[in-house]
Amino acid sequence: MSMNYQAINLNESAAQIKELWSPKVVGEIHDFQFKVVKIDGEFMWHEHQGADKVFIVLEGELFIAFRDGQVKISQGEMIIIPGGPEHKPFAEKECHIMLVEPKEVVDTDSH
Amino acid sequence: MSMNYQAINLNESAAQIKELWSPKVVGEIHDFQFKVVKIDGEFMWHEHQGADKVFIVLEGELFIAFRDGQVKISQGEMIIIPGGPEHKPFAEKECHIMLVEPKEVVDTDSH
Repeated sequence: MSMNYQAINLNESAAQIKELWSPKVVGEIHDFQFKVVKIDGEFMWHEHQGADKVFIVLEGELFIAFRDGQVKISQGEMIIIPGGPEHKPFAEKECHIMLVEPKEVVDTDSH
Repeated sequence: MSMNYQAINLNESAAQIKELWSPKVVGEIHDFQFKVVKIDGEFMWHEHQGADKVFIVLEGELFIAFRDGQVKISQGEMIIIPGGPEHKPFAEKECHIMLVEPKEVVDTDSH
């Protein structure tokens, strides 16, 4: 058996995370990372220094507030967050997300 | 409302695809593409010319045969396929997948 190749269960990865807003890397290809994160409540207004990100909702409902509107992303949906505009993720209940983003991106507080 | 920002429903995107083994781009960030594909049966043995890919199973069960073993990836799981080794994806029933991969990668028949 080729034990180097393994399926990664995203819901189990999320369930093992204890801390909110603390993304855990589950995979990496080239200069991109796949991270699972558990959120609840509000994050700060921030931007991504030009780095685009994808958020895929594994469980629950994610909201992203932009300065000119907001979007709801439900389980089984994804959204592309462009690197430029300020935004603020939030969730009304616990929500599990997979992020896909370039390595070494720092969220810049834009409050 | 900021109508530029929209949730992409992955299961609906897959449901709209009629042709098997015909990935449809649903999103793009930097030099990476997100594609949804419907599969059933066997693909050819191939390799990725050094490009790593991620397969996320949206519905059903995906199998990847490598020359030294095989892996089953179920709904809610992902696998990283390294660019080097030959492999052959297959499914025993219809299966919906999201691929994350660098742009302009060509699968090279290695049969």
